[in-house]
Amino acid sequence: MAITAAHVARAPRIRLGMVGGGRGAFIGAVHRIAARLDDQYELVAGAFSSDAERSAASAADLGVARAYGSFAEMAQREARRKDGIEAVAIVTPNHMHAPAAMEFLKRGIHVICDKPLTATLPEARKLVKAAEASGVVFALTHNYTGYPMVRQAREMIAAGALGKIRLVNVEYIQDWLAEPIEATGQKQAEWRTDPARTGAGGSTGDIGTHAFNLANYITGLTLEGLAADLQSFVPGRRVDDNAHVLMRYEGGARGTLWCSQVASGQENRLSIRVFGEKAGLEWQQENPNYLHVTPLGQPPYRLSRGGAGTGEAAARVTRIPSGHPEGYLEGFANIYAEAARAIIARRDGVAPDPAISFPGLKEGLEGVAFVDACVRSSKRNAVWVKLAN
Amino acid sequence: MAITAAHVARAPRIRLGMVGGGRGAFIGAVHRIAARLDDQYELVAGAFSSDAERSAASAADLGVARAYGSFAEMAQREARRKDGIEAVAIVTPNHMHAPAAMEFLKRGIHVICDKPLTATLPEARKLVKAAEASGVVFALTHNYTGYPMVRQAREMIAAGALGKIRLVNVEYIQDWLAEPIEATGQKQAEWRTDPARTGAGGSTGDIGTHAFNLANYITGLTLEGLAADLQSFVPGRRVDDNAHVLMRYEGGARGTLWCSQVASGQENRLSIRVFGEKAGLEWQQENPNYLHVTPLGQPPYRLSRGGAGTGEAAARVTRIPSGHPEGYLEGFANIYAEAARAIIARRDGVAPDPAISFPGLKEGLEGVAFVDACVRSSKRNAVWVKLAN
Amino acid sequence: MAITAAHVARAPRIRLGMVGGGRGAFIGAVHRIAARLDDQYELVAGAFSSDAERSAASAADLGVARAYGSFAEMAQREARRKDGIEAVAIVTPNHMHAPAAMEFLKRGIHVICDKPLTATLPEARKLVKAAEASGVVFALTHNYTGYPMVRQAREMIAAGALGKIRLVNVEYIQDWLAEPIEATGQKQAEWRTDPARTGAGGSTGDIGTHAFNLANYITGLTLEGLAADLQSFVPGRRVDDNAHVLMRYEGGARGTLWCSQVASGQENRLSIRVFGEKAGLEWQQENPNYLHVTPLGQPPYRLSRGGAGTGEAAARVTRIPSGHPEGYLEGFANIYAEAARAIIARRDGVAPDPAISFPGLKEGLEGVAFVDACVRSSKRNAVWVKLAN
Amino acid sequence: MAITAAHVARAPRIRLGMVGGGRGAFIGAVHRIAARLDDQYELVAGAFSSDAERSAASAADLGVARAYGSFAEMAQREARRKDGIEAVAIVTPNHMHAPAAMEFLKRGIHVICDKPLTATLPEARKLVKAAEASGVVFALTHNYTGYPMVRQAREMIAAGALGKIRLVNVEYIQDWLAEPIEATGQKQAEWRTDPARTGAGGSTGDIGTHAFNLANYITGLTLEGLAADLQSFVPGRRVDDNAHVLMRYEGGARGTLWCSQVASGQENRLSIRVFGEKAGLEWQQENPNYLHVTPLGQPPYRLSRGGAGTGEAAARVTRIPSGHPEGYLEGFANIYAEAARAIIARRDGVAPDPAISFPGLKEGLEGVAFVDACVRSSKRNAVWVKLAN
Repeated sequence: MAITAAHVARAPRIRLGMVGGGRGAFIGAVHRIAARLDDQYELVAGAFSSDAERSAASAADLGVARAYGSFAEMAQREARRKDGIEAVAIVTPNHMHAPAAMEFLKRGIHVICDKPLTATLPEARKLVKAAEASGVVFALTHNYTGYPMVRQAREMIAAGALGKIRLVNVEYIQDWLAEPIEATGQKQAEWRTDPARTGAGGSTGDIGTHAFNLANYITGLTLEGLAADLQSFVPGRRVDDNAHVLMRYEGGARGTLWCSQVASGQENRLSIRVFGEKAGLEWQQENPNYLHVTPLGQPPYRLSRGGAGTGEAAARVTRIPSGHPEGYLEGFANIYAEAARAIIARRDGVAPDPAISFPGLKEGLEGVAFVDACVRSSKRNAVWVKLAN
Repeated sequence: MAITAAHVARAPRIRLGMVGGGRGAFIGAVHRIAARLDDQYELVAGAFSSDAERSAASAADLGVARAYGSFAEMAQREARRKDGIEAVAIVTPNHMHAPAAMEFLKRGIHVICDKPLTATLPEARKLVKAAEASGVVFALTHNYTGYPMVRQAREMIAAGALGKIRLVNVEYIQDWLAEPIEATGQKQAEWRTDPARTGAGGSTGDIGTHAFNLANYITGLTLEGLAADLQSFVPGRRVDDNAHVLMRYEGGARGTLWCSQVASGQENRLSIRVFGEKAGLEWQQENPNYLHVTPLGQPPYRLSRGGAGTGEAAARVTRIPSGHPEGYLEGFANIYAEAARAIIARRDGVAPDPAISFPGLKEGLEGVAFVDACVRSSKRNAVWVKLAN
Repeated sequence: MAITAAHVARAPRIRLGMVGGGRGAFIGAVHRIAARLDDQYELVAGAFSSDAERSAASAADLGVARAYGSFAEMAQREARRKDGIEAVAIVTPNHMHAPAAMEFLKRGIHVICDKPLTATLPEARKLVKAAEASGVVFALTHNYTGYPMVRQAREMIAAGALGKIRLVNVEYIQDWLAEPIEATGQKQAEWRTDPARTGAGGSTGDIGTHAFNLANYITGLTLEGLAADLQSFVPGRRVDDNAHVLMRYEGGARGTLWCSQVASGQENRLSIRVFGEKAGLEWQQENPNYLHVTPLGQPPYRLSRGGAGTGEAAARVTRIPSGHPEGYLEGFANIYAEAARAIIARRDGVAPDPAISFPGLKEGLEGVAFVDACVRSSKRNAVWVKLAN
Repeated sequence: MAITAAHVARAPRIRLGMVGGGRGAFIGAVHRIAARLDDQYELVAGAFSSDAERSAASAADLGVARAYGSFAEMAQREARRKDGIEAVAIVTPNHMHAPAAMEFLKRGIHVICDKPLTATLPEARKLVKAAEASGVVFALTHNYTGYPMVRQAREMIAAGALGKIRLVNVEYIQDWLAEPIEATGQKQAEWRTDPARTGAGGSTGDIGTHAFNLANYITGLTLEGLAADLQSFVPGRRVDDNAHVLMRYEGGARGTLWCSQVASGQENRLSIRVFGEKAGLEWQQENPNYLHVTPLGQPPYRLSRGGAGTGEAAARVTRIPSGHPEGYLEGFANIYAEAARAIIARRDGVAPDPAISFPGLKEGLEGVAFVDACVRSSKRNAVWVKLAN
């Protein structure tokens, strides 16, 4: 029943900057809470807006000491300070991820970047190369992999609890774009449906990448090819708002991925089912503290976060006992906490704990390649294609 | 709270015969209970087995007066009796449906046939022609359409409650063939995995047709084409045991169908979700008394069989008040009850109530064409194909 | 996957009569379906109404050969026929149960009686004595004990799977009497809220007895005493429409029972939870095919009717495989099926199978004593009282 | 989709101290996360243990500047500092709440105190008087009232959505004390089962007070009297580990409360159902983002935190959009956030926003009086008693 030691801050907090996330933004506030939850970061600088005045106003709102009018300026000036930021959170629209990240990583500043990695595949390849060369810690906030029961699922599959995997079924369906709200001035909808800012994929990029990443993370499988049927149901929409994807994994597993932003009455219904020769499992993001296990020929059972039958992988990202739910922010914070452990190891010059797990460059490149493949396949009438990562 | 008049037998019971369904069979017993539930049929004859002695033994078990050693003999002799059967239930393996049905319908005996209609598409076409020419009532036991809340869903969609349909997601997943039990002498598994008896499709024919029919029934949509990826996961299996199908409907709706007999730990998880421009709905066979409705921009609500907010279509196949569950047998019996109404109208020489609804030849042909299309598509690497019905 | 032999009729059908259950009645139709489901009874006579003409009309509706204008007449005349009824189903308002039952049992006709046994405790005592003296089979349709997973629960507790029982929590809440519908001419509401016909208890008699019986059946415990707080929330109502009951069982277990007919928005929410030293279990009537088991210190698991991990007691009243739900009518039919086995054993002069289980006189007397105790306790401000059975 | 302004820190953080909550404690860490989540507090001092060395070690773990060996010392010294704490969180065992709180409030330091308010009723009365006289902000962490959907329920009932309330059913059942773990050295179990530290009530004090407070908060009703049957199922246990309580509210509503720490296989199953003349509602802590509403005569519907149909009361304590779950820590943090708003208003010399809502002295006194009444009633065989607050 004790809070795990993993959540007690023992090292000085990591000095963090933020790019984007000013007034009116959504995901920036989530990143700030996630960074704060376990007391491992201190937000000390921000380029919250490309308008210096607005950036300063946001900084004042947030009690953040140093405001900048551009990420480039922030990168340059923070890199020169003794007490400059050690890490930066990038929470801009997709097309800004790469240029922003490049400025920081080349100065040795660790990067925590929102997903997808970039808006285009060439950008993604370039960023990965640069980041690898730089040696910085690079975390991509595929936050759903931070949920303890997702980690439980991954651990069980890796341990063979399901036997050889045959089937993967993952979906992420929402309804917030069921109507053409991008035409009404809604900011989130505007950039997320604008190919110049969001990339070639709409729902595939925004939520399909989450679903794809989740399936990969849990199963440990590698995709061999996919066939995708993308739609733009809302008239005038320039990117997909629904996608049906058939998937073939190396080793023979087969699967489907469905992402939708026009599924009326659905909130954030991300769920995954995996079936192996010996058992199946199921997890649902909207009630994330449970993992349902369905062994072949035995009664199905339910694992609770923090409860009986759960293992190490879940325990290390669990804060409170079973029956008291943790949610989205805690899962998101787990990505920050894992990244913090990696950053602190780097700071201390020691090897990071091999148990640390968070999505990074590899997952980012895969995600962008997934969107690219979906778009390519769909243009050719759902022909099978390979990922080009 | 009253039992509806629809369930009170007012006419003399329909004299029923049965082909198949002897000792050790499964679905025959289900048909018998379904026929009995509303007291509209009396089982008076049977060709329960092609072995006359076994047929007689089954008849004795069941208290059935007249036993025959072949369906042909039964058809001939019953047709000559004044008190001969008026209808026959065909509950054999698939490849026997057509030859058996032909014998009865050509003698003006109504047919209630288990699904799929036939094992092959040519047979299906031929049977449909013959049956249409004969003028008999022909009911196909796609029993899931007998569930009251399925009818509620159909009624709501027809009335426009969901707006224009965009998305259909239907699945039927089981695990009973997750292992090669056909090799152990299990009779059900043997014929259902033998192409000569079951047809070219395995899971697609056995349960995929149910899912396909359910989607058509509820949405009223017509399929334009499909792309199918079929698998036989169990080594040595000669038919598919899993299928992922992309679907395009006339009018622009898109969908997916998943059927599986290797989804470890799943029982009979048949479920459907439909999303339109204004609302979505969801129904699950394993808890069939509820229909979940998810309007865009309003709280989701739940309709109960027999409860507030349900309409005529569900009410006419509802026996007991809400909160007291009806199940599979009741749903199955509704197909029998609807067919009985059609048969009695025919007997009485009156036009049948237009509200009567049960699957028949059209649905049967579509189902066999669905299997055929899945097999054709999958052989060509999941290319898009049209149904050949 | 086979229908169990238990459901194959091997003996000639039991000739059944019915008292009550004519046009407009509710529970009579349920009894008829229950009697028919497994083909073990044939309804051949009825005193469907105390008005001979109405009784005859109901008989005609139902295709029943012999109609009577009174139960006394039916008892007398049927007793004299060679092909007279062997058993009678009594489905009248409560105050008629005892007089009707007496007529039949004294002639050696078996009785299947709706619950509660009688409207008053003295009547119940007298009826029990007479019935025991007569030697007839007497079944009381506490139908919820017919659900397979209720039997599974009973079997597990008897086998010690929960350890020593500590806690019982049972409830049955509805809303159909949330408003004074007895004042509107609704027949069901009229007699069920009229002390002269229903007895001293309202909700306690109508549904509290079901809940009480269910708890006793599952746990095998004997009540030591209760303290009840009864309410009549609807102005003018002459019987309780809600009851909160504290319970103390022999051996130290404690419990609560809640029955309500004014719980707005509730249908037939009968549920039970039992907690022992080693595990707990939970069952809900509105989704009755599952039993949830919660072992101390292990993950909770779910048993399905017909599925892995279920035992003999459930199997013998199970018709179809897991994942295809059975419902209220099937559970009700199980009481009829079990009674049929006892009646046929009697007919054949053999000892009944000891596995046969259905509620009878003992449970009936306990139920009436339960209502009596609730009323006595509540009148004295919820003081502890003992049952006077 | 935007983070609400309510969660943006605009004022300097409140300087916070903590009493208790050192190494090995549970609830202290929860309080720290709750204080941190919305960035409104800064933990600057602590008397984490009565052992000065241990207190200092905990402070070092936590990066807290000032450590003290006693709460008295902390109160005195912090009160003298210009940058001394403005508020203190008291997270000790129950018997220490009153003495600790007294030290701070008499110096004008605001108090955030874990529940129950005190271990005894006389202490509670004394503390309430002193606190009221002092004028400090006093928050009691009945954290479950911080859940947004609890506030939604309260708002709906206050607005008359359920009509006149008839029934309240609240329960909080766990299993962590199903075995005598207090005998094994488990610290949490030790003090929570020791009357000297926990008070006269065991489960009633630890979790019954939560359930009682939740029912009062949601319904706005005032208890008129209760009858309680308390048990200590585990041999040797000195306080109750289970309680069944009948409740009568002013105005005629009736209810039951069940708390248990021996309900095998249950985690933190706190749930409440309220039924009024027009509708009912239901909320479950283990899946807290939903509120289920059951109108009489209409289909039941579900409200989501952040979703369609929710009102102001929930919105002001909601951080992220619907479909992304918030959990226990967020609910707990809402109590801190609301207290912060009150403290900042006090600091600024302005009237607090009347929408601010958090449990305080009144609720604390009621809770201790509830435990006292339960114990008194149970000793007299569950006689009806009034609360002595």
